[in-house]
Amino acid sequence: MKRLMLGVFAALALAGAARAEETAQEKANKAAVLAFYDAALNRLDFEAAAKYLGPYYKQHNPTAADGAEGLKGFLTYLKANFPKTHSDVTMSFADGDYVILRVHAVRTPGTAGNAIVDIFRLENGKVVEHWDSVQPVPDKPANNNTMF
Amino acid sequence: MKRLMLGVFAALALAGAARAEETAQEKANKAAVLAFYDAALNRLDFEAAAKYLGPYYKQHNPTAADGAEGLKGFLTYLKANFPKTHSDVTMSFADGDYVILRVHAVRTPGTAGNAIVDIFRLENGKVVEHWDSVQPVPDKPANNNTMF
Repeated sequence: MKRLMLGVFAALALAGAARAEETAQEKANKAAVLAFYDAALNRLDFEAAAKYLGPYYKQHNPTAADGAEGLKGFLTYLKANFPKTHSDVTMSFADGDYVILRVHAVRTPGTAGNAIVDIFRLENGKVVEHWDSVQPVPDKPANNNTMF
Repeated sequence: MKRLMLGVFAALALAGAARAEETAQEKANKAAVLAFYDAALNRLDFEAAAKYLGPYYKQHNPTAADGAEGLKGFLTYLKANFPKTHSDVTMSFADGDYVILRVHAVRTPGTAGNAIVDIFRLENGKVVEHWDSVQPVPDKPANNNTMF
C-alpha cells in the first residue's frame, strides 16, 4: 500500500509538473513576445528587442529581411519615417511554441491605422520565426464592431 | 489511510478530468472551426457552415455584416464572383475559447491570393465571433520564406 501511495503521489506530482511546465512555458513565451513587441514596435529600441531573439529569426513578413539585421533595418525605417508610431495589443494567445497577437498599429497619430495579426514561433523562450497579415482599418465598415 | 487514498484518487481524477476537458474542448473547438471553414470558404455551402454557428455571430471583418445572414451574403457573393475560390489552412492554434487559423486564400486559380489570419471565439463549441486581417501576397517579397 505504501508503494502504491508513493506511486500515486509520484503520478500526481509528475502530471502536475509536466502540465505546470507547459503552462509556465506558454506564459513565459507570451510575456517574452509582449516585451519584445513593446521594445520593437513602441519604443523602437532595437537593442532591447534583440535580447528576445533566438540564434536566428526567420521572417515571413514580405517587406522585411531575415535575421536581427532585418528587424534593425525595419526599426530604423520606422524611426526615420514614423517616430510616433504606436501599437496596441488587443488580444494575445499562446499555443505550444507559438504566440499570436491581435494588434492595432497607428503609425501616424490620428489616422485609422492597421489591423494586424502577428504569429511568433519560439525556441527555448526566444523568438525565432514570424508571420503576419496587415490590413488597413477602413473608414466605413459594414458593421459597428470595430476590427478589434 | 483509506480515506486519504480515496482523497488522492479523487484529486487525481478531478485534475485529470478538468485538464482532459480543457484539452478536449480546445481540440473540439479547433475541429469545429476547421470544418466550418472548409464548408464556408471551400465548399461555399452556407447550410453546412451554419451548423457550426452559435446563437449569434459577431463579425469584426469590416466588409461583412453580423450574424448568419452576414455569412450567407458573403458566400453568395463568393459563389457569384469567385466560384473556384480555395482556402488552404497552413497553421491552426487553439487557446481557451479561441481558435486561430493561418490561411492562404486564392479566389482565382493561378493568382497569388491573400495571406489571412482568422481569429474565432467559440461558446459551447459553437462559433460566435470573428476577427481577421487580410493581406495580398506580393509578387516580389524581401525574403524567400513565403508568407506561410
